[in-house]
Amino acid sequence: MNTKQNADNPEIILTGDRATGPLHLGHYVGSLKQRVALQAIHEQTILVADMQGLTDNAHNPKKVSSNILNVVADYLAVGIDPSKTTICLQSQLPALAELTMYYSNLVTISRLERNPTVKSEIQNKGFERSIPAGFLTYPVSQAADITGFNASLVPVGDDQLPMLEQTNEIVRKVNSLAGRNVLNECRPLLSNASRLPSTDGKNKMSKSMGNAINLGATEKEISAAVKSMYTDPNHLKVEDPGNVEGNVVFTYLDVFHPDEDYIKQLKEHYRRGGLGDGTTKKVLEECLQDMLRPIRERRSEFLDDKAQLVDILVKGSQVSREKTSEVLFDVKDIFGLNIF
Amino acid sequence: MNTKQNADNPEIILTGDRATGPLHLGHYVGSLKQRVALQAIHEQTILVADMQGLTDNAHNPKKVSSNILNVVADYLAVGIDPSKTTICLQSQLPALAELTMYYSNLVTISRLERNPTVKSEIQNKGFERSIPAGFLTYPVSQAADITGFNASLVPVGDDQLPMLEQTNEIVRKVNSLAGRNVLNECRPLLSNASRLPSTDGKNKMSKSMGNAINLGATEKEISAAVKSMYTDPNHLKVEDPGNVEGNVVFTYLDVFHPDEDYIKQLKEHYRRGGLGDGTTKKVLEECLQDMLRPIRERRSEFLDDKAQLVDILVKGSQVSREKTSEVLFDVKDIFGLNIF
Repeated sequence: MNTKQNADNPEIILTGDRATGPLHLGHYVGSLKQRVALQAIHEQTILVADMQGLTDNAHNPKKVSSNILNVVADYLAVGIDPSKTTICLQSQLPALAELTMYYSNLVTISRLERNPTVKSEIQNKGFERSIPAGFLTYPVSQAADITGFNASLVPVGDDQLPMLEQTNEIVRKVNSLAGRNVLNECRPLLSNASRLPSTDGKNKMSKSMGNAINLGATEKEISAAVKSMYTDPNHLKVEDPGNVEGNVVFTYLDVFHPDEDYIKQLKEHYRRGGLGDGTTKKVLEECLQDMLRPIRERRSEFLDDKAQLVDILVKGSQVSREKTSEVLFDVKDIFGLNIF
Repeated sequence: MNTKQNADNPEIILTGDRATGPLHLGHYVGSLKQRVALQAIHEQTILVADMQGLTDNAHNPKKVSSNILNVVADYLAVGIDPSKTTICLQSQLPALAELTMYYSNLVTISRLERNPTVKSEIQNKGFERSIPAGFLTYPVSQAADITGFNASLVPVGDDQLPMLEQTNEIVRKVNSLAGRNVLNECRPLLSNASRLPSTDGKNKMSKSMGNAINLGATEKEISAAVKSMYTDPNHLKVEDPGNVEGNVVFTYLDVFHPDEDYIKQLKEHYRRGGLGDGTTKKVLEECLQDMLRPIRERRSEFLDDKAQLVDILVKGSQVSREKTSEVLFDVKDIFGLNIF
């Protein structure tokens, strides 16, 4: 993490998740752990992006609505503290929709079509020419999210860098229209953690692929996920020498096991032969069960008290509504629309 | 006008104008006169579309902001009565921006690119591939405007019919998602008046082309506009027989002169020869001066009291904010997002 800034000069951080499913170990490694660390030093807001979740799920809105509180419970379970991090709901912040409308006039369709992240997502989702307008234009909405909070630092994976470029292009256009710096450009905060592979070693982790371990996974689900995990396909007998590279069990052990030396020994043993996948999986399962048990329990307690989760979102959204309205005021001012 | 409905069963009418210039005689004939009649029978809202005006003027926002109050003054000057018609400002109604975001997920980019009205406007404006996203998607925003007021009747020119089709497509998608009729389809109210030609007889009337007579035109401007008006290019000498078809002076006389018989005689005289363009233009000028004098005077009085104009917009926007918020609530409900 590049959190070199000191506490006297906190950054404004905006981060968030599409509320389209419960969060999993990939989120934990890629962003949640980082957020827990960041909330101690910086002014952090987490946006539960329900509207963005709808851009490709409008015909199955339950996928979004049913996951809003799950995601909030995931946050709290891993240690995100609502007294340090503002957690808010995108659909509760009308200023973000309004900013999106204004920014849309400053971005061309062809520019959006050239966005590499959107391009690859369109391909993945098989949209071709039937892309929903809201999906093609979601980088504009994301620019509204980021600038609406006046964020200086945005934690992203490197596949999301084109989104920040798009945001900063809009920022420069707005500032050039204003003739002064009304909005701030944001910088990416790239996580040091490399992307956690899916349990099948093939794809990006996703709930629908069944290749992710959710933060709320039961003991049985964890056990089954580890047992089915991709290892070295040429490691047929226990006595065979095995490969640890590309072997998902070892990748997870590297990430999650607390004892580095022990894992180093385990790898050497596996490489020279004589160590079965059953044994390495047992080690991994034990470590994941230990790690996820308290998270699962806290998550379940939070979900038992939905009123508390709603209350956290209400309070966070209230604070965020004020912040984003101020930015909207400044942007409308550039267009001369604050006539009353 | 097809205002056959009786006063016991008033329609909800939404109409409006992009605030990109003062209104002119084309607006008067094509819509303003109709609105004055409609306000007596129906529940009419006029939306001053500043945000839509920005979709192709974002780099010149003054063109929009400086015309908002002019347009309101135009309305009042021709007899639109704020106690009968709600006059509101689009940028003051966040629910419209939010509805636009939700609807955007239900419309594909290729569907928008097929919209004949947008297609021809893109061509007229020379946008080609550099269409602002907000411009390509403005039919979605217009659907938000119409449905946001739950309008049943929308006065349009026939070139705008594809916009209402797009709106009703969205309405049907929303209702199908909801499994019941949450939104109402709207019907067009086509004006009987044919489009008033520009003074040069060539183009659509527009301020930038200098071929329109604004409602606030000065005596001199009216005089100059009539003098330069396109007549019959083959009518060189007074004694020559002349054509009244395509002769803008006669088209305007047909529309604006109160004495039909007199115009009939004038046409016959012109056709057989012996009537000069100077004379017909004098008749037209007198009639336009008489008609526009009181409008110009009222307009100027209203513009002298900007606080009153703002007050009308504030009150109309307040009422409209409540109406559009109710529709937004119903739409968000379909997506399961009214969790608090």
